[in-house]
Amino acid sequence: MNQLEALQRPADSKILLLVMDGLGGLPRESGGPTELEAASTPHLDELAASAECGLHIPVAPGVAPGSAPGHLALFGYDPLAYPIGRGIVAALGIGHPVQPGDVAVRLNFATRDSDGTISDRRAGRIPTELCTELSAKLDQIELPGVSLAVRPVRDYRAVVVLSGDGLSDSVADTDPQQTGRPAAVAEALTAAGSRTAEVVRAFVVAAEQALADSTPANAVLLRGFAQLPAIPSLEERFGIRALALAVYPDYRGVSRLVGMDAIDGLADLGAQNAALHREWDGGDLFFVHHKYTDSKGEDGDFDGKVAEIERVDAALPDLLSSNPDVVIVTGDHSTPSVLRSHSAHPVPFLIAAAGCRPDRVTQFGERECAGGAWGVIPGRQLLPIALGHAGRFGRFGA
Amino acid sequence: MNQLEALQRPADSKILLLVMDGLGGLPRESGGPTELEAASTPHLDELAASAECGLHIPVAPGVAPGSAPGHLALFGYDPLAYPIGRGIVAALGIGHPVQPGDVAVRLNFATRDSDGTISDRRAGRIPTELCTELSAKLDQIELPGVSLAVRPVRDYRAVVVLSGDGLSDSVADTDPQQTGRPAAVAEALTAAGSRTAEVVRAFVVAAEQALADSTPANAVLLRGFAQLPAIPSLEERFGIRALALAVYPDYRGVSRLVGMDAIDGLADLGAQNAALHREWDGGDLFFVHHKYTDSKGEDGDFDGKVAEIERVDAALPDLLSSNPDVVIVTGDHSTPSVLRSHSAHPVPFLIAAAGCRPDRVTQFGERECAGGAWGVIPGRQLLPIALGHAGRFGRFGA
Repeated sequence: MNQLEALQRPADSKILLLVMDGLGGLPRESGGPTELEAASTPHLDELAASAECGLHIPVAPGVAPGSAPGHLALFGYDPLAYPIGRGIVAALGIGHPVQPGDVAVRLNFATRDSDGTISDRRAGRIPTELCTELSAKLDQIELPGVSLAVRPVRDYRAVVVLSGDGLSDSVADTDPQQTGRPAAVAEALTAAGSRTAEVVRAFVVAAEQALADSTPANAVLLRGFAQLPAIPSLEERFGIRALALAVYPDYRGVSRLVGMDAIDGLADLGAQNAALHREWDGGDLFFVHHKYTDSKGEDGDFDGKVAEIERVDAALPDLLSSNPDVVIVTGDHSTPSVLRSHSAHPVPFLIAAAGCRPDRVTQFGERECAGGAWGVIPGRQLLPIALGHAGRFGRFGA
Repeated sequence: MNQLEALQRPADSKILLLVMDGLGGLPRESGGPTELEAASTPHLDELAASAECGLHIPVAPGVAPGSAPGHLALFGYDPLAYPIGRGIVAALGIGHPVQPGDVAVRLNFATRDSDGTISDRRAGRIPTELCTELSAKLDQIELPGVSLAVRPVRDYRAVVVLSGDGLSDSVADTDPQQTGRPAAVAEALTAAGSRTAEVVRAFVVAAEQALADSTPANAVLLRGFAQLPAIPSLEERFGIRALALAVYPDYRGVSRLVGMDAIDGLADLGAQNAALHREWDGGDLFFVHHKYTDSKGEDGDFDGKVAEIERVDAALPDLLSSNPDVVIVTGDHSTPSVLRSHSAHPVPFLIAAAGCRPDRVTQFGERECAGGAWGVIPGRQLLPIALGHAGRFGRFGA
């Protein structure tokens, strides 16, 4: 526990962290508004007017964050100090328990041609039902000295978790990343990975035997070998119990990594709101995640992203009726629809609390937030600021 | 290579880094404009309107930077992590090769009175021709166990480079810093420097014998003993080839320190612009340095500094006709003409790129930039931001 964490003190206060994935944007035309600036957001604007605003940098200037590091920052962690592999995020996302020492890896069902090259890295995007059936088949594979779990995620995606002594995530991906090439044979990246690579090669042989009669999913591609990093929990660091209310499994995964509880099976903002109110008495920090702002950005759909922001704005009064002491509204990174991808642009945020110092921002948007109380700060500072407003830090020093 | 540098990825993009030395300023009269605000800069203003603006701190808040650390920050390095001695900057500035282990030191030709005190620390500012002749004389000195190079720089200034085993830069300056006092005898600052101090004392004795009949340059003053720090190159860190286009040798020196190529013999902005266009296909980052904004600031010449800024503004269209993907315009530190020296004031900058997020700044000036997209940030973050816009970082994390 570092010096700031040692200042933690109990309080009855509650914090709502509302994340619109990929919130930050760019103008569609020169001089025009961003998605957030274009959206009609009366409730967010009202909240911003009573809040401290700014822009945050999730990872580092110039660097586009992945989802896991973007969220780690919002949870108060330095993402560079806790690199999170794809396999771990996938396993935790579906609620599969991962122990220290386990190795998790993403598995794609794929299609291999008779010449051995991969003709479809997603096996025609097979439905989740078939993925579940094929995963159950691969889960039967037995390998000497390790235990194995293969679990479906969604569509053509699954996750493999290896447990046993002396495993390492120092193994290269087998996914060739493009069609027309064969899958790679699993190779160790360092000497520490050689035994694991051998196990993985045996798994791939057994898997493709088991899939021999399966069409189009007759091959497996593995990427993102990863072990659990040792991350101190939010409860250890700040003395808070946190609950994640996210529709998508990956966000529940990264939440569990920092010791949050996460509720499965929430279908939409309505269900998330209902769960928020239902669970209100049992937590200190409530993380509500909205995925579709990012999805629309990735699709290059400016108007669609505007509409998603407006949906969240419309849901805000219901969320706020839980009566949190502190509210953070932000994104985990920018996903400008003109770029169709995550980007390095700073992300607008607001922090509202009874004891905050409101700035002159009256409209929640990128350019307004640049003139807000906080300017541009690292993303990992948002939660400590909120904890301060929530009365959860003692004074530092005499 | 750190985690961010590991994200480097190739791209065809090109970055122009235009540095007006000592750009930041102060108002001449209370409430008035700074030099940059007073200057008529239509081209810079137009660029600022489409750019992300802010102020940067080259070294640390409250600290006035020297030229070398100011530039290291602009090249993406933490100047506190790579202290650069004056001797190294001088040697690299004239293109003299310095090897790891060598010790370089600045030499001033000076005038010593018959009573042994220094009456002129610059020997009446002897011309470069005489400096060259005297340097050649001192270059003949032979010392046991070390090889020696003495090279002229300009006017009364030269540089000495010692090569050999077991040398150290832990030696105190011999320059008394004021007239009417004798030069100091070279003393080791730590035990590691004792052998080098002995060599330097022998050199000074031999040099003053060689100069015995020379008037007014009959003495030498040494300052800034320095060895080459181990600095990873821009190519190693970010995968970019960089070219320096600077009139003054010291700036080529600090550029070479980070692995830039540097073109000698450029006389003015016109020659720099011609070289930029000529070399355009061979580089990724082009550093164009304008010295005279700083010189006028050091002279206390407010209007002269305004005129230099306007000269650069007038040259901007030609520079931009190279069609860079990203443009940074800034200074390496502030040199307010009212202070006649480098100062700690944050330095205005703009970063323009197709994918940038323009703020509300429409005039390039200190107070406008304070309300820009980035607020006040460390100078070493500018290049990573530009590299991000240039598509030269992959995404961090899954």
